[in-house]
Amino acid sequence: MGNGKMGSHTASRTSTPVLPAMFGRYKARVEQELSHSMPSAQDSSLYTLLRYHMGWTDRYGRAVAAPVSQGKALRPTLCLFACEALDGDLTRALPAAAALELIHNFSLVHDDIQDRDVERRHQPTVWHLWGAAKGLVAGNTMQGLGDLSLLNAARMGVSPETTLKVSQLLTESCLEMIQGQCLDLEFEARTSITTWDYLEMIACKTGALIRSGLEMGALLATDDPASSQTFARFGSCLGRVFQIRDDYLGIWGDEATTGKSTGNDIRRRKKSFPVVFALERATGRVREDLLQIYSQPSLDEEDVARVLAVLDEVGAAAYAQQLTEESARQALQALEEVHLPDWARAEVDELVDFLARREY
Amino acid sequence: MGNGKMGSHTASRTSTPVLPAMFGRYKARVEQELSHSMPSAQDSSLYTLLRYHMGWTDRYGRAVAAPVSQGKALRPTLCLFACEALDGDLTRALPAAAALELIHNFSLVHDDIQDRDVERRHQPTVWHLWGAAKGLVAGNTMQGLGDLSLLNAARMGVSPETTLKVSQLLTESCLEMIQGQCLDLEFEARTSITTWDYLEMIACKTGALIRSGLEMGALLATDDPASSQTFARFGSCLGRVFQIRDDYLGIWGDEATTGKSTGNDIRRRKKSFPVVFALERATGRVREDLLQIYSQPSLDEEDVARVLAVLDEVGAAAYAQQLTEESARQALQALEEVHLPDWARAEVDELVDFLARREY
Repeated sequence: MGNGKMGSHTASRTSTPVLPAMFGRYKARVEQELSHSMPSAQDSSLYTLLRYHMGWTDRYGRAVAAPVSQGKALRPTLCLFACEALDGDLTRALPAAAALELIHNFSLVHDDIQDRDVERRHQPTVWHLWGAAKGLVAGNTMQGLGDLSLLNAARMGVSPETTLKVSQLLTESCLEMIQGQCLDLEFEARTSITTWDYLEMIACKTGALIRSGLEMGALLATDDPASSQTFARFGSCLGRVFQIRDDYLGIWGDEATTGKSTGNDIRRRKKSFPVVFALERATGRVREDLLQIYSQPSLDEEDVARVLAVLDEVGAAAYAQQLTEESARQALQALEEVHLPDWARAEVDELVDFLARREY
Repeated sequence: MGNGKMGSHTASRTSTPVLPAMFGRYKARVEQELSHSMPSAQDSSLYTLLRYHMGWTDRYGRAVAAPVSQGKALRPTLCLFACEALDGDLTRALPAAAALELIHNFSLVHDDIQDRDVERRHQPTVWHLWGAAKGLVAGNTMQGLGDLSLLNAARMGVSPETTLKVSQLLTESCLEMIQGQCLDLEFEARTSITTWDYLEMIACKTGALIRSGLEMGALLATDDPASSQTFARFGSCLGRVFQIRDDYLGIWGDEATTGKSTGNDIRRRKKSFPVVFALERATGRVREDLLQIYSQPSLDEEDVARVLAVLDEVGAAAYAQQLTEESARQALQALEEVHLPDWARAEVDELVDFLARREY
């Protein structure tokens, strides 16, 4: 157990939670490992695209003085935390942590192509700058580098057996994630999605890597299958907490903190959880209005306002937050089955509270 | 050594070579293993796209009575042959063989999106039927299934150490292949590509998987690093033989046998080897003509005829075939360093001759 763990900040349940200390604790190690996993940009122009996407360089391959926000590195953080919470050596989990972040970013690069999104983290997206064909190969490269990072875990003293087991887990969850992306695409063209369909989709699209990240971290710490399965169940619940809160922020989040404008997901006609809920709950004229608006090729500000009003009428925000907090409770409950030291238990509480109530 | 190996047909050097017996020998095993690697289409509509691409079903997921040509399965065949030639157990190499074919098909599905090709093997391409976004996820799934097939090689009695080594090799060569695809994209926008640049590009784009397939087959048969390195060198030469002959057929091949119309690669403004050679060799007015034609957004039949005439003038067909046969000699020479039984040596001769002079 490293220094600083006990100094973690425990947010009160009423104020806006701050980023838990575990994110800061692993940040430098994750970045170092990621950088190690990526060949230098001089080798090929292709790596310029990857380094740009990661926020390390500008579009010309020049290192940026103040790297733009690269996201929270949620998946690597969860993986390293699970390993340390089970008294494992953090170093052993670093290749898996880097692999998770690379695979996650592979999905972002391809998602941006699929959704024709021109901006991410306040920057033009890779395909928007270099074209869809280059974006496609950049994403594929990111994925290959992720796989390779983990396959090379022997340099951290991980046995071939464990490396293989963890690699299978990563590949299976990556396939699940892709399956979720496919379902997401299919939902775009459908009007009759139930909240149940939606929860199944996000369990794959977002949930798979969050769950496998925690399971991988546990597997790298201990041979006890009960522990890794418990962390997997914790991860399944946590994935739902994360995504439903993400959907909430995509509509009602503050632009300055989320980097997305309020109502943004509505403007992009995204069928995120609150909208799916409203389509399921609304009846008569209200439902027809909603269907009519979502059948348009693009939405104006009046349409966005009307959707926001419908969401209000059916209580979508409150329901989304209720489901988030229910999932948070289930997450904590799942983890009760494993013995954890006090510092880890405290950090779990802090983490779950953050993911359920974060503003960014 | 199985029955039938000695009965292989040895084509005379003057007649058109027929498909070597090794392709037929491994075909059923490869198909069985591939089918085993792919979840059934009932699980998800996504696998319908994959099964369709493989030629197993029609676009509605219905099994086809007479499956369309699925290609030669060159990479799996090379992998299994290398394993058997070194007296290895064929069964051990089956997961690697299936992985190679899946990774190769992943690259085809994505290539079709990049090149906006609407037809492959006389059938509409996946993206053309289901859209680019679905084509993208279908390709990604194919890749994940390939990785997983190999990671599960333990069921064929392969040790974790060897599985890991072979998986690293596959992932590294897959990254090389993607790098080649990226170079290929860049070449489209450039007029000053040398034949040297081109050969470097195809060494990645086509050569990497052919080389690694042979190396993987060798690694699964023997722990002797000299043998697998020899097969890798053989594969590097063989990849060049295969691709330059492919480029030749893309321009001068017979439509009925290649499935592509004569001059097809010119019509698509592909900068394949003969064209790169002509751009390098031609001077003055001839070169200007060529550059002018290749700068047009599309080519009419008169343009195609003019390019064919220029290729004739500079002797591109003869030069391409000369390089193919020189590479074939280098391939055979590379393999002299390893001890092989007579049947395998005879099959190598037959294979190299086929790849250098095939008509399809």
